[in-house]
Amino acid sequence: MTSPASADLDLTQDVALLTAALIDAKSVSGEETALADAIERALRAQTSLSVVRDGDAIVARSGLGRSERVILAGHIDTVPLPTVDGARGTVPSSWDGEPGEGTLWGRGATDMKGGVAVQLALAARLFPAAGTHDAGASPAAPASPARDVTFVFYDHEEVEASKSGLGRLAANHPDLLAGDFAILLEPTNGTVEGGCNGTLRVEATTVGEAAHSARAWMGRNAIHAAAPILARLADYFPATVTVDGLDYRESLNAVGISGGTAGNVIPDRCTVTINYRFAPDKGIEEAEAAVRTLLEGFEVVRTDGAPGARPGLNHPAAAAFVAVVGRDPLPKYGWTDVARFSQLGVPAVNFGPGDALLAHKDDERVEAAAIRECLASLEAWLRA
Amino acid sequence: MTSPASADLDLTQDVALLTAALIDAKSVSGEETALADAIERALRAQTSLSVVRDGDAIVARSGLGRSERVILAGHIDTVPLPTVDGARGTVPSSWDGEPGEGTLWGRGATDMKGGVAVQLALAARLFPAAGTHDAGASPAAPASPARDVTFVFYDHEEVEASKSGLGRLAANHPDLLAGDFAILLEPTNGTVEGGCNGTLRVEATTVGEAAHSARAWMGRNAIHAAAPILARLADYFPATVTVDGLDYRESLNAVGISGGTAGNVIPDRCTVTINYRFAPDKGIEEAEAAVRTLLEGFEVVRTDGAPGARPGLNHPAAAAFVAVVGRDPLPKYGWTDVARFSQLGVPAVNFGPGDALLAHKDDERVEAAAIRECLASLEAWLRA
Repeated sequence: MTSPASADLDLTQDVALLTAALIDAKSVSGEETALADAIERALRAQTSLSVVRDGDAIVARSGLGRSERVILAGHIDTVPLPTVDGARGTVPSSWDGEPGEGTLWGRGATDMKGGVAVQLALAARLFPAAGTHDAGASPAAPASPARDVTFVFYDHEEVEASKSGLGRLAANHPDLLAGDFAILLEPTNGTVEGGCNGTLRVEATTVGEAAHSARAWMGRNAIHAAAPILARLADYFPATVTVDGLDYRESLNAVGISGGTAGNVIPDRCTVTINYRFAPDKGIEEAEAAVRTLLEGFEVVRTDGAPGARPGLNHPAAAAFVAVVGRDPLPKYGWTDVARFSQLGVPAVNFGPGDALLAHKDDERVEAAAIRECLASLEAWLRA
Repeated sequence: MTSPASADLDLTQDVALLTAALIDAKSVSGEETALADAIERALRAQTSLSVVRDGDAIVARSGLGRSERVILAGHIDTVPLPTVDGARGTVPSSWDGEPGEGTLWGRGATDMKGGVAVQLALAARLFPAAGTHDAGASPAAPASPARDVTFVFYDHEEVEASKSGLGRLAANHPDLLAGDFAILLEPTNGTVEGGCNGTLRVEATTVGEAAHSARAWMGRNAIHAAAPILARLADYFPATVTVDGLDYRESLNAVGISGGTAGNVIPDRCTVTINYRFAPDKGIEEAEAAVRTLLEGFEVVRTDGAPGARPGLNHPAAAAFVAVVGRDPLPKYGWTDVARFSQLGVPAVNFGPGDALLAHKDDERVEAAAIRECLASLEAWLRA
């Protein structure tokens, strides 16, 4: 084991303790530089990977010349710290009991410094720097990875999409993101969650004619005119679509409504904001067409949208990985960066330690055992 | 004719020219004092009425000892001046053509300095100060009024109800507002408009359960739940109710709707603001009960309301007045201060020169002939 003086992070320590060290290196979006520096130094010093830095993103690639290349990706930023006194999902981290055992609390514990710790530990275990392997502790040298691996660490995931470090990498260095299959180490409780639903936002607007409400018959009520929009949304039964063997449950919802100017004026305008989460069997144009069909007769304007991602589980590398994990894969409902890989032509799944429902919460935490289990599954797969 | 040095206003001049003088005495709500001073001085100097001042309201009463007393009331304030360059509904006033003929433009022309001018002219003609009557110009002295008259001039009508000068008078001096019948000289194009509809505002709220919109089935959508509220309002066919011979057209409308907290959150609350304009055959409690019945199953909270006023045309004084005007009376739809008289037990109608639809407009104006016609009708009735 080594503890290089040139790096703050010891990638060879227990992966749960490494997670705690990563939490302690506070890295709210926009303030990732110190952590990115530490990760870059550690990768250069403790692994044989070739490292490229772009802003606060780091790409570290192996060069074994294998026929397949897989990508392991994770963001290093977190949402802001809790503002509630006594919240444990903060910085520095804390343990229930002995360090390294049980539950680890802290900002980023589940989203997603546990996943980043697994990436870093894998990098050090699979691709140790020359002379750092302690042959004595492991008489039978472990198998060399069967696939080349690209590790991607990126900034600005928890903020507006335009700032995304992964988006910037895709624009500046698409070659560095080439691969046959990608795993995003977002929290999935150790289950493979394939692809993701797309998301589309539209505004449906009704237009009426203003009048004094004491003489309502002189106007036309735009809020009343919106009744069929709400009725159609309320009556709509969202589909569940099977894509590559996973069942994607869709949803179509009004997420906002506004209308009216004053308590004595017949409203001349009412706007319903609608969010359609659509299965990855369709593109964003198809999704928009479906909403337009449902709301036929109403003015519909797209305001926002991002395509989903197919799970890609039909790829051999993905199938092998699912077999190693040994659990039935699930569909991912929320939009994640797997969609960016999908757009680059790389099938991608989510797989990481921790519970996504604890993400961004004041009681954010992760189990040490879950982090180790995740590391073990990935290492077993990559060495197979 | 007299032109008292102690007063700025000559109440005996042509009533259209008097209207112009009143417009020129700018009196936006809250700035009525100078005009109230001038009116008080003129009434004291040029009439035999007994005058009481309360704030910027003035009550001037005759004491003929007649068996009936009628009230003529009007507010002396206006909405603010137009802010648009070149608008003619401003101060000072202006004429199309010769002063006193044709169209008079200015803030308050229709709402309601024309009506106030008619009140002041009537006061001077019916109840001239001792020694001011020019017998030479009118060899047959006009008949003395058959009814006692109370003239009410009040402030703060164009602002929130709590500031109303008429409301203050009703609280401080209910005795001064006693009478058998009241005419409010709001603009009605010279037609008697009887009573007024009441107004009720309620909020109907739906409550759901928030969830991420990517997992909509974890929540309940409060906006969708509001669909039946809008459908019932849209399908509702408002009644027309005949009260004392006038047809009151009701209306029931959503005047506002809001719901939703973010583009990716299932809304847990949606509030529809509803305004019911109800005929004066019912009180506010009955009106609220009707809305609750229509929206059965939904949470309904009353936020605001004011009862309407029956037209009171069955009163002999009212019937005589309608006969003198010689036009079919109409119902009043908007809420006006006749409702305050109604609450004091005094039947009241609206009758005044000018078009109510020009009130508050940048092109506010009134016809000189309409002002004179209004004065003639009232004088004929009061001398009958």
